[in-house]
Amino acid sequence: MFKKVLIANRGEIALRVHRACQEMGIRTVAVHSTADATAMHVRLADESVCIGPPAARDSYLNVAAILSAAAITGAEAIHPGYGFLSENASFAEMVEAHGFTFIGPTAEHIRMMGDKIAAKQAMMSLGVPLVPGSDGELASLEEAREVAERIMYPVLIKAAAGGGGRGMKVAHSADELEEAWRVARTEAKAAFGNDAVYMEKYLDRPRHIELQVMADMHGNVVHFGERDCSLQRRHQKLVEEAGSPALTPAERDAIGAQVTSGLSRLGYRNAGTLEFLWQDGQFSFIEMNTRLQVEHPVTEMVCGIDLVKEQLRVAAGEKLGYTQADIAFNGHAIECRITAEDPDSFAPSPGRVNTYHAPGGLGVRVDSALYSGYSVPPHYDSLVAKLVVHGKTRAEAISRMRRALGEMVVDGIRTTLPLHQRIMDDAQFQSGDYTIHWLERFVGLQR
Amino acid sequence: MFKKVLIANRGEIALRVHRACQEMGIRTVAVHSTADATAMHVRLADESVCIGPPAARDSYLNVAAILSAAAITGAEAIHPGYGFLSENASFAEMVEAHGFTFIGPTAEHIRMMGDKIAAKQAMMSLGVPLVPGSDGELASLEEAREVAERIMYPVLIKAAAGGGGRGMKVAHSADELEEAWRVARTEAKAAFGNDAVYMEKYLDRPRHIELQVMADMHGNVVHFGERDCSLQRRHQKLVEEAGSPALTPAERDAIGAQVTSGLSRLGYRNAGTLEFLWQDGQFSFIEMNTRLQVEHPVTEMVCGIDLVKEQLRVAAGEKLGYTQADIAFNGHAIECRITAEDPDSFAPSPGRVNTYHAPGGLGVRVDSALYSGYSVPPHYDSLVAKLVVHGKTRAEAISRMRRALGEMVVDGIRTTLPLHQRIMDDAQFQSGDYTIHWLERFVGLQR
Repeated sequence: MFKKVLIANRGEIALRVHRACQEMGIRTVAVHSTADATAMHVRLADESVCIGPPAARDSYLNVAAILSAAAITGAEAIHPGYGFLSENASFAEMVEAHGFTFIGPTAEHIRMMGDKIAAKQAMMSLGVPLVPGSDGELASLEEAREVAERIMYPVLIKAAAGGGGRGMKVAHSADELEEAWRVARTEAKAAFGNDAVYMEKYLDRPRHIELQVMADMHGNVVHFGERDCSLQRRHQKLVEEAGSPALTPAERDAIGAQVTSGLSRLGYRNAGTLEFLWQDGQFSFIEMNTRLQVEHPVTEMVCGIDLVKEQLRVAAGEKLGYTQADIAFNGHAIECRITAEDPDSFAPSPGRVNTYHAPGGLGVRVDSALYSGYSVPPHYDSLVAKLVVHGKTRAEAISRMRRALGEMVVDGIRTTLPLHQRIMDDAQFQSGDYTIHWLERFVGLQR
Repeated sequence: MFKKVLIANRGEIALRVHRACQEMGIRTVAVHSTADATAMHVRLADESVCIGPPAARDSYLNVAAILSAAAITGAEAIHPGYGFLSENASFAEMVEAHGFTFIGPTAEHIRMMGDKIAAKQAMMSLGVPLVPGSDGELASLEEAREVAERIMYPVLIKAAAGGGGRGMKVAHSADELEEAWRVARTEAKAAFGNDAVYMEKYLDRPRHIELQVMADMHGNVVHFGERDCSLQRRHQKLVEEAGSPALTPAERDAIGAQVTSGLSRLGYRNAGTLEFLWQDGQFSFIEMNTRLQVEHPVTEMVCGIDLVKEQLRVAAGEKLGYTQADIAFNGHAIECRITAEDPDSFAPSPGRVNTYHAPGGLGVRVDSALYSGYSVPPHYDSLVAKLVVHGKTRAEAISRMRRALGEMVVDGIRTTLPLHQRIMDDAQFQSGDYTIHWLERFVGLQR
C-alpha cells in the first residue's frame, strides 16, 4: 500500500480522501491555493503545499505545481477527488509519466468517456442500453410507424443534422405520427437543408439513476447498486438517494450485470459511475463519470463499504476482496447537498461562518470542511456540507434527515438548509414519485 | 403511538431520546434545572419546563415536579433515560399511578433487579449462569475439594457471614486448598463469630460482558448481542465495544438463548441489560440494569436498530417487528466516553466550551449535547460526549476512532480525549486481550 498520497483537491472531498488515507495509515499531502491556507483539509493533512493563487486555473488546475508538490513531498500517488483535474486524461497521463500512481481509471478510459459520442458507442458495443430508437435515419413514414410501435409512444422525431430543438417533434400516439413526421422533416429541411430524421423514445418523465461500479486491475468488476439523483436544478444535483424509490432489486441486478460485464470486457479499472435516464423500467445511458462522485456516501451507507479505501486498494494493485454476491444493500440513505447560496435566489453566499454546528446521533453522517470561524472563499464551488442519513426504510431516512437538518447550524452565511427542509417536508418528495423535472417546478412554486 | 413524551433527564441522553421521538413524529417535553436553561436538550425540545434548582435532588430527582410537568404539558409517557430516576421502582409506580406510561420495565422488575440478591436468585431460577461455586455452605474440606475440582482452580473460599475481604482466601491449586480452608475458617470465626464458608470460582482476569435485550408486552424477547465493557476505571466504563473481542458467535448465541428464554418466563418487558463477568468461556451474572445503558449506541451500530424507538414502540404496546433470527451483527463498533475531566488526574473540569467541533465522515457518530459557547455545569455527571465509530472489522473501527478523536475539538475545558487517543494507540488494547483490570493499570502507567 502507498505510504504517502497527495490529494489534488480542496473542501469536503479533500477531507474525505484524507480520512480514508489516515485510517489506512497512509500519510497525506494537501495542496491549497493562497485562499485556502487555513482550510480544514490543510489543517488536518500531514503535510501541505501551497500551489498558487486563488483562481483555480492557477492552483487546483495547475498541473505543474501539483506534480512539483508530489515530487518534493515524496508522495507516491495522487487522488484527484471530483471536479478540477479528476476527469482530465492528460493530467492522468502526466501523473503516471512522472512516476506517480493516478488513483483512478486509465487515461484512455477517461478520454473515451469524456467524449460523449465515443462513450455512447462504446456502451452500445458493450450491451449497455441507450435510449431506444431507430437504427439511424428513418427511410419512410412506414418505418417510423414500425419503430414507434416497437419503442412505444410517446416518440421524438429528430433532425439527423439538427440541434437546438429545431426539426424536433413529439408524437404522443399513432394519431400524431404522420403530422410529426411531416413537420419535423419540413423544419429540418428549412433549418439544415437536409430532411433526414431519426426517432428516439420520448422520455417525458425520466428519473436520473446512476450505477456505482468498482473494478480492480485483475478483471474483477462489481457494482454497488444505484443512486437516484433526479432532484436537480439546472443540472446540479441537490438531493440523492440510495436506492432509487422507483427501482426493484431485480431491475438493479439486471442493469448491474449488463454494466459489470461490459466494463470487464473494456478493461475498466477503479471507481466509475454510469448515469442513465430511467423511465418505465427502461435505462438509457447518458454518460459515464470516471471518478468518485459527490454523492458516493449514500452508496457507502447502504453497502457498508468505504469507496475511497477501495479506490486506494485497487490503485495499489490489490484484488477486490469480495464478489458481487457478497454485496448486500441495507436500508436507505439520503444525501442533501448544503451549499453556500441563498435558498430562494441561489445567489452565492460566501463569507465567514461564525458558528458551525453539525447534527449528530444515530444514522447521521456529515461530510464537511466547515468549522466555526472559517471563511467560505468566493472562488470555488458553493458546496459546503453533505448531510447524509441512513435509516432502515426510506421513511425513516426522511424523518432522520428532517430532524438532522433542524439541528444543523451554519451561521453567518446563507445556505440551502431551509430549501432542503422544505423538500423533505413535501408530500410528493415523500411519496418517492418524482422525475428530473420535479425540483425545478418545486423551486419555482416555493418562490 | 404516543403524541407527546416527557424526557426526565438531561445532557446527551435527553437529546438521544428527543431525536428518536422527533423522528417518530412524537412531540417532546424537556425538563431542566435552573442550571440547564440553555442546555441543548432544552433548546431542541418542543416544550420545556423548569423543575427546580441545580442540585439533582431538587430537580432531576424531584418526582413531584416531573409529574406536574407531565400533567401541565399533556405528556402521555415519560422516558427516564439512564441514571437519575431510571431505576427507581417507586417513580415508575407513581408515573403509572398518575396515568402516564413509564417507558421501561414494570416497577416490580425494577425493584427485583435493584435488589442484587433477589436478582441473582431470580436469574439462577431462570437458568442464567451465576459465578460457579458451592451450593451454599461447605460441610467439609472433602466437599471443598470436590467443588474445586468441578469448578476448577483458582477458587475463592469466602465467609458465609462475611464481607470486606475478611475470611476470604484464594487457592490457586489443590496444594493450597487445605491452607486456604483453614485460614478462611479461622478468620471467619474471629471476624464474624461464625466459621461457615462457601466456595466460588476465583476470576483472576475476567472481562465485563453484557447482553442487550428487548422485550415487548406479548412475551417476545430478543437480544441484540453483547457489549464488552471491560475498560473501566473505578467501576466507571470508559470504552465499550460490540462485539466483544473475546466472544465467539456460538458463545453469544448460547448465552443469548439462555437469557431471552429466562426473561420471557419472567414476563420482563422493554429494554434491559444483563451484566456478566466472563472468563474462559464462562459467564457469571452480576446484575441486570432495567433501563437504557450509556453504551447502547455500539449495539445500535452493529445491529442497525434504534433502541430508543424500540423502547417507545413496546411501551406503546406494539409487538416486536422481528424475531431473533432477523437480528444480524454487522462489523464492529467502539464507543469512547468523553468526560469533562483532566485526562491524567480525572479531576472534574466544568466550564465554558469556547469551541466545539464534532468529527465527521463515514462510520462516525457523535452523541453529545455540547455546543460552542455552552457551559458545562459542575452539578452533574461529567460525561459530555460519546464518540462512536463503526467499521467492517475491529481494526478498521480502531483506526476510525483514532482519526475521529484527532478531529474532535472541545476547547475551553479539559476532557479525556487525550486519554482515549492513548488507549486507541496502545498495542495491548489493539490486540483485544484485556480484562477489567487492564485500564486501571494502563492509567497508572500513563501518569
